[in-house]
Parts: sequence; structure tokens; C-alpha cells
Amino acid sequence: MRALRNDRVLRALMRQPVDVTPIWLMRQAGRYLPEYRAVRQAAGDFMSLCRNPERACEVTLQPLARFDLDAAILFSDILTIPDALGLGLYFEEGEGPRFRKPLRSSADIEKLGVLDTARDLPYVVEAVRLIRRELNGAVPLIGFSGSPWTLATYMIEGGSSRDFVRTKQLLYSDPQLLHLLLDKLAVSVTDYLNAQIAAGAQVVQIFDTWGGALSAAAYREFSLDYMTRILAGLTREAEGRVVPTIVFTKGGSPWLDAIASSGCDAVGLDWCMDIGQAREQIGTRVALQGNLDPAVLRAPATVVVAEASRILRAFGTGSGHVFNLGHGISPDVPPDRVAALVEAVHSMSVK
Amino acid sequence: MRALRNDRVLRALMRQPVDVTPIWLMRQAGRYLPEYRAVRQAAGDFMSLCRNPERACEVTLQPLARFDLDAAILFSDILTIPDALGLGLYFEEGEGPRFRKPLRSSADIEKLGVLDTARDLPYVVEAVRLIRRELNGAVPLIGFSGSPWTLATYMIEGGSSRDFVRTKQLLYSDPQLLHLLLDKLAVSVTDYLNAQIAAGAQVVQIFDTWGGALSAAAYREFSLDYMTRILAGLTREAEGRVVPTIVFTKGGSPWLDAIASSGCDAVGLDWCMDIGQAREQIGTRVALQGNLDPAVLRAPATVVVAEASRILRAFGTGSGHVFNLGHGISPDVPPDRVAALVEAVHSMSVK
Repeated sequence: MRALRNDRVLRALMRQPVDVTPIWLMRQAGRYLPEYRAVRQAAGDFMSLCRNPERACEVTLQPLARFDLDAAILFSDILTIPDALGLGLYFEEGEGPRFRKPLRSSADIEKLGVLDTARDLPYVVEAVRLIRRELNGAVPLIGFSGSPWTLATYMIEGGSSRDFVRTKQLLYSDPQLLHLLLDKLAVSVTDYLNAQIAAGAQVVQIFDTWGGALSAAAYREFSLDYMTRILAGLTREAEGRVVPTIVFTKGGSPWLDAIASSGCDAVGLDWCMDIGQAREQIGTRVALQGNLDPAVLRAPATVVVAEASRILRAFGTGSGHVFNLGHGISPDVPPDRVAALVEAVHSMSVK
Repeated sequence: MRALRNDRVLRALMRQPVDVTPIWLMRQAGRYLPEYRAVRQAAGDFMSLCRNPERACEVTLQPLARFDLDAAILFSDILTIPDALGLGLYFEEGEGPRFRKPLRSSADIEKLGVLDTARDLPYVVEAVRLIRRELNGAVPLIGFSGSPWTLATYMIEGGSSRDFVRTKQLLYSDPQLLHLLLDKLAVSVTDYLNAQIAAGAQVVQIFDTWGGALSAAAYREFSLDYMTRILAGLTREAEGRVVPTIVFTKGGSPWLDAIASSGCDAVGLDWCMDIGQAREQIGTRVALQGNLDPAVLRAPATVVVAEASRILRAFGTGSGHVFNLGHGISPDVPPDRVAALVEAVHSMSVK
């Protein structure tokens, strides 16, 4: 394997010195890029694209050809796991993800299996291998998974939700049954991330998109505890380097301290908390990733630069910051704003 | 005017000793009550109910007849102000609020007037007067308004929104124009709340439902600063007592300190932050209101009691806590859970 030519992200995640603040963007391979839309159209539906390693590799690399990004992230979806566990994922145009067989009874949860990634999701493993080969050491590759809680919400609700009525009903009325589900998912996510690491992922991120819907006590018990367990079960080193871990709970600002103590190397921030205040609160225990509001990317480039500057100044000097958005890029963002952002972050953060 | 027989809410909001922790619930007069649905049906649509002082009074009092609540809250909607300013509010079944004439251009914002409550919203003033008379000193009456930022999002988006694309577009691309709008709304909200106080409201709450969608810097500049200005302009005393003020920003946990310094007497908490941690952070500068996840009210009564107990213990001894939900009651909550909650909060919090 070629030596890594740009290891800023790995270094920043481990709080080691870097020349400039590294940047990658959640959903950097996606619909805002015309070249992505072309491949997506050729692939047919979204899951066909995810399931095709060559095409997944191709779209993973697209943003790197355009922008001076410091990492690639595996193109996939957090719902591959429930799909592989038999729930039948599909996407309805403009409706988001849906499951043909959501979990509707205790029997559904009891009979649910755990993931054997090599057997159940070979296309993801193959995509990781392919992307690493094609990257050829240019930048590190980030693997990822949804958190058990976040996966559980989709599996129970049957798709996206606003209030998580069914999932919270289970949480408050039959917590042991929910724990059984989360336990299976934690085992599955651990296997999934370790398989990605074995195939070449050099960083892994856990997306806890819906942890922020919980109360403080419920967040610890039903989301953070399972992520902590996963982190403890991950392969810590590969190819002679630490594989840094990132936990991103959208809406997780109130629990920053607890997340920073989960065993992760970095905490992903949405845009609600001032990153300077976050750094003050957690010190250098973990690195921070974030935290630009994706909405800024619809504004003129001068505003993009000013808002990026605000975040860089708030974080302050020293390493331990990976610039990112506080959530994924929206499909309607003009690609030139991303170019302006990446250039600005690098040029304004020379150490 | 009869002397107030139950002033726990007023006392707790001012951090004065109380015999038990007082409780009221956001949206306590609402669809979960069959007697509400009956009046609503008789009234026709939702706004006809709001616009009819007798009916608004009737539904305001309904939950007090059932439950031992410590306050009444004016039955109305936060969108009465934009409606009175000419935007034409209507409700589509299952779709939430909509405006016939949303703000679509700078001219729309420039020509927008400011509210003269006596002239533009006499039905609200009349409802407050009527409710006070009917309450006859049983419990205090809470008046309320939406925050300028929250009102602006509806006025610009034309209704509910998930990502506030248009509003954030304006915020980042033409902030001065948004400031012009927020300025007019702050003047309007001040007049509106003072008119409610003059008519008999004994507490006022500002609902900043969508402040949590903003970045830390944008929250201060586009939401909190305007609420601070409103608070400074409110009538401080009426009928020989302080009129306590509550600021509730859903998702506002990351900014608790700043909100507590806005000049309000109490901060409303959603359910994400542990109320004990919040109290530790802000001390006794302000009272805290909250913070039960409304989803708990769908669970068995034993769970409702256990979760209420957790919050009471987390807050600890002493005054300065008004028990509430972290958001409005959902329409599908069984009323007996509310009864269990109110009873539990009172019986478990004897000082």
C-alpha cells in the first residue's frame, strides 16, 4: 500500500501538529455534484449505487477531483445494516428511506439476527478495498456506520420520523426489549466497522443522527452507552497507525463532556455550539470536528469565507480541529461555494 | 380583582419559597382533551376558535377543571401577530400553519407594519380579560408570544419548515433586511405582551420554538438579542406584583448562560439537558422551567411518575423550578397520564 501523502486528518484527530486545519465534508459525494447525479442516474436507484463497488468508488472520489479535501469518505448509507438484516430498504422519491418490513412486534426484535459483514455486506467491504486502491495514498479513507439508537429509530418507525413516537413508546414502556435490539445492533456495528477497518478504512465515524431527540438520561442509556461499547470493540490500529474514531451526535451539545469520555478520539459538533466554548469545556481530551451550518453554503462566497474564519478563530491555535459542516451538504449547494470553503480553511489556518 | 389563591408559579419563577413544585404544561389546553375537540369542532377552524374570546376562555379553563394545575395559559397561537400584520394565516388539515401572503421580497418586509395590539388583536386582549375574570384568582394566567426569530421563519417560509432554507438564505445573504424584519417584530411582540399584561396576564413567556436551528453566533444576533430587547421593554409590575418572564428556546441548551443573562426571570428547558446540570451551570440567577420529554406521557403512569421523580431529584431542593414538559403535549396523550403527572409532581415535591 502506498504511504499516505496527506495525513492531516489522521494527525488532527489525534491532536498531533498539522501544517493547516484539515477539512472534509459530510455528504461530500452527493447530489450537489452534477457528476454524482450522472452516475446515480446510470445506476438506477440509490441502493443500486451503494451496492455497486465500482460506482460507489467512483462517486467517493468525485469530490476529491474537484476540491482539495483532506479525506475521502466511503459512499454508502447508514441503513445498509438493517437492509442486510432483512428489513428491505427502499427509497421513495422525495420521501426518504423506508423499510418494507419494519420492526413491529417483540417477535420481530427477538428473531432479528446480527450482522456478519463479510457474508451480509460484501459490497461495502469491496468498495472500501477498491477506494483505498484508487486513492493510492492521496488522503485517508473514512469508514462509517449509523449508531445503534439511530438505526433502531428507522427500523422501528419504518423510515424517517419527526417525533420517534414508536421508538420512544418502546423506550419508555418496554426498555428491555429496546435494549435487546440495541445490543444486537451494537454487535453488528462493531463487526461492520472492524470489517471496514480490515478492508482499509483509516478513520471511522459513528453517525448518531437522532441521539439529540432523547433526554439526557435516555441518551446515555440508549445511545451513548452502546457507542461506548462499540468503540471499546474496535480494532485500534491498522497498517501501523492508530485508526481514529469520531462520534457525531446531532444535537449532542448538552452532553459534550459525556461524549468526550466515550473512548472516541474526536467529537463531531453540529453548528449550535460555539466550537471555542466546546474546546474550552473538553480541553484537549479529544479532537473536535465541525461546525459550519450547511446553510452557509448557499450564501455568497464572501460569507462562506467569513463564517469559516469565525469558526477557525473560535477554535483557536493548535491542532485537534477537523473542519467540517455540522450536518451533510444540501443538494442545492453550488459546488463553487465548496471550493471557496476548502480553499479558505486551508489558507486561513496556516499554523 | 380577587386575590390570587395559588401563587406557586409566580413565587417559583421569582425563586421565592413554595410549598410544592408548581406545574403547568405547554399546550395543556388542546387536542388531547375530548372537551377541547368538542369546542374546536363547534368553532369550525382553529383560528375561529382563537378569534372568539368566549371560546378561547372556555378551552383555556378546561384543563384546570380536570387537573390540579398551577397556572392557566391563554389559549391562542403564536402566529396571531403575522396574521394581524396581513399575512393571512390559515391551517391545512395535517399540514400545520400556512400564510396566504408570505414575505417574498425586500418590498414585502419594508412595507410590513408594526402591531398595535388594541387595534389589530382586540380578540386576544378580550380573551385575557375574560379568562382573568373567570379564573377569579384560582391560579395565575400566563400570556405569551412567539419570538421575533420564530415568527420570522414562518413569515418567510410561508409555514412550517425543517431546514429554514429561505430564512437562513436571507440571514446569510442580506442580514440587514432580516434585522429590519426582526426589529419590527420585536416592537410588535413588546406591544403584544404589554397589552396582555395590561389586560391581566400575570406571567409572560416568549416561545422561541426555532431558535435552536441557528448557530451560536446567529442565535445571539438574530434571536436572543431581540428577546433581550423585548424583555427590557415589558411592564415589570402589575397589580402590585412582578410579572415574571420566561424565555423558552427549544434546542437552546448550548446557550443556557446567555439566555439566563437576557433579563428573563426563568429559562424554559427542553428535555435534552439534565435540569440538575442546568441548575449547577446557572445557579439561582433565574428559575428553570421544564423538562419532561412529552413522549413520556404515552408511557404507563408508573413510568410517568418515575420520570417526573428523576427530574425533581435532578433539580434538587429549594425553589426556582416550575415543572413542565420540554415541548407541547401531543394530541395522542391519554388525559389520565396528565392527571398522574400533576399529582406526582405535587406529592413528590413537598418542601
